[in-house]
Amino acid sequence: MNVLVANLGSTSFKYRLYAIDGAEARLLARGGFERVTDHGAVIDQAMNELAAAGHKTIDAVGFKTVLGGDITGCLLADEKVEQALLATADLAPAHNPPYAAGIRTFRERLPAVPRVALFETAFYQWVPPSAHRYAVPEEWYQAGIRRYGFHGASHKFVAERGAELLGRDDIAQKVRDLYIAGPQSSGTLASGLLASGLRVISCHLGGSSSVTGIRDGVAIGTSMGLSPQSGLPQNNRVGDLDSGAIPCAMRRLKLSLENVEKQLTKESGLLGISGVSNDVRDIKAAADKGDARAQLALDVFIHSIRHWVGAFWLEMGGCDALVFTAGIGENNSWLRAAVCENLAGLGLVLDPAKNAANATEQNLAAADSRTQVLVIPANEELVVARETARLLQAKAGRVNGEG
Amino acid sequence: MNVLVANLGSTSFKYRLYAIDGAEARLLARGGFERVTDHGAVIDQAMNELAAAGHKTIDAVGFKTVLGGDITGCLLADEKVEQALLATADLAPAHNPPYAAGIRTFRERLPAVPRVALFETAFYQWVPPSAHRYAVPEEWYQAGIRRYGFHGASHKFVAERGAELLGRDDIAQKVRDLYIAGPQSSGTLASGLLASGLRVISCHLGGSSSVTGIRDGVAIGTSMGLSPQSGLPQNNRVGDLDSGAIPCAMRRLKLSLENVEKQLTKESGLLGISGVSNDVRDIKAAADKGDARAQLALDVFIHSIRHWVGAFWLEMGGCDALVFTAGIGENNSWLRAAVCENLAGLGLVLDPAKNAANATEQNLAAADSRTQVLVIPANEELVVARETARLLQAKAGRVNGEG
Repeated sequence: MNVLVANLGSTSFKYRLYAIDGAEARLLARGGFERVTDHGAVIDQAMNELAAAGHKTIDAVGFKTVLGGDITGCLLADEKVEQALLATADLAPAHNPPYAAGIRTFRERLPAVPRVALFETAFYQWVPPSAHRYAVPEEWYQAGIRRYGFHGASHKFVAERGAELLGRDDIAQKVRDLYIAGPQSSGTLASGLLASGLRVISCHLGGSSSVTGIRDGVAIGTSMGLSPQSGLPQNNRVGDLDSGAIPCAMRRLKLSLENVEKQLTKESGLLGISGVSNDVRDIKAAADKGDARAQLALDVFIHSIRHWVGAFWLEMGGCDALVFTAGIGENNSWLRAAVCENLAGLGLVLDPAKNAANATEQNLAAADSRTQVLVIPANEELVVARETARLLQAKAGRVNGEG
Repeated sequence: MNVLVANLGSTSFKYRLYAIDGAEARLLARGGFERVTDHGAVIDQAMNELAAAGHKTIDAVGFKTVLGGDITGCLLADEKVEQALLATADLAPAHNPPYAAGIRTFRERLPAVPRVALFETAFYQWVPPSAHRYAVPEEWYQAGIRRYGFHGASHKFVAERGAELLGRDDIAQKVRDLYIAGPQSSGTLASGLLASGLRVISCHLGGSSSVTGIRDGVAIGTSMGLSPQSGLPQNNRVGDLDSGAIPCAMRRLKLSLENVEKQLTKESGLLGISGVSNDVRDIKAAADKGDARAQLALDVFIHSIRHWVGAFWLEMGGCDALVFTAGIGENNSWLRAAVCENLAGLGLVLDPAKNAANATEQNLAAADSRTQVLVIPANEELVVARETARLLQAKAGRVNGEG
């Protein structure tokens, strides 16, 4: 099955074409366009490029959609999905409108090719209400003000790959089937029973970052809540912030609500604290040269990662594996060392020599560490392609479970 | 030294008079007035009541002030303190104006009696920047938008009494001297060195609640941030909330900012979720009868307590004692059991029989529990009286350290 993964921005269109065959996935082609004004035209152009390269068959198009309110999971991207994206665009203004438009354009240009939306919120469908409910009035909750969580594609990939690396194929299989069979399934293993619980804490650290607690392959909570500017400090978005700060800033700094929102979503996070950059590499370089605000930005980031790791660690009563993924997590041994500092009492000991290597899949834990420390390189497009194929194969009535 | 502790509300005035003699403190008298319109008149009346009962000497008046921005600690309540209370009244509108007015009234009525302000933020003076800084733009931070923390009097009492109960008199002494000698002091022990680290997590659970991490007697962080409507869900205040929820609620529910603030500070928290009451006793009774929203309110509350306990547990690399204090924490064995559930892997095991008793100072941990679980009844007025006496004795140049 050839799956095109469409990555849509307001003025960009990037794509990857995968051939999915059972557990195997092969990247056939990739391309992209910037400064796009006519998405229909560039989609036509992409199809022509692919055809010219010999890729004439597209069996499905997969979209990594962000937020659809109550609409979540991995599902056919029908007009209901388009509407849900537009109805919740206030919370994801940079992502939802281009995806709604892109899905519509693919519907118009390639009407016979099924479209699949994999929501970033999908992995959090089974988070218990105690962890997704804010202490707001009931009407606020009814209006959709709750924790949704994001980066679901990445954290689900960690849940699956982490289980494989930890020798828990039963749980890896359960994660593969999660959006088809639900959280109660234990995959296709004959026993139908999990040998014992598996507790993973996944740190997706990149331009946008989050920490997710995963028990037996299912998310129990995540650091991002209602909006993508909560949880960890992001590159230029604020992360967790006392909600009382908004009226306070409006009064004390004489800011309009629009200006407050702009500052919290574009001038905050690591950029806001450091005053240097929104890129951790630049901030680290400045900190190493003695820039105190840059060092503070890194300290706040690490403190916030540890805050959320600790919350999930206790909630699950322990942690079998702490995982680092995405650009910052994969490539910065100093950051991983700081996150893991002083955790021997909890059973986690990093091996400094192993931790010195970057960007490859590996276990960084010392031999006597009860908690494993994994680096798992992220590949979110591959996740979208796989989930798209799984959904369509399940809908076609074929046997599941081949990965 | 006779210390009057003045508890001031916008329409109330309550007082307690303590005789402080070294480590001993004796409650001499207490009283109060409701529906007060003229604070000066009721203060005169209180002085007359005390004089009639034979208490003619008042050596100092202590105030448990909430928030003064950069002004914090335990210090003489001079006009600078009055101004700081008014300048930060936007964040503590129910408390700061009556305290500013009350301090002024005492200054006018009893000019010769020293006035001492013990700020609720005082215990957090040494929280590292990584834990008090939000990822906001620098101008926001300069405008005072940072974590302050509250309930400092209660958590400091836990730090002192907890150290005593754990056999760490060195740390108890350090805590007693904290506002006089600073966090580097190790008390008056001859060695000047701490035997080993002591990690305490203090849960102040009452009408208003917070969790504080305490290392070697000094707070490393707390769940309340800028405003008293952050951290745990409060009786009718929201607790932690995605800051993006405010603009979202304004758009989706067509609310003004004033209305949003009113709902978040008066119609949220345990009341907002349960729809039943702002009192945990009523909510528990409703939940026990099958009310799902009441049960959810309790579940969210417990989840949030565990969230913060976990964050401090990991940050300190372990926990020697988990402490419950204030009305809800002292009197609800079911809640303590829920907070401590499934923590054997972290070394905490509750003794169910010990936990069944309420409201007395005790250790609830099982014999094989590495982490002790203490109940320490709160007595915030006593803390204010003691700190007031300590400050004035230190200023008078007398020998410190007698408690």
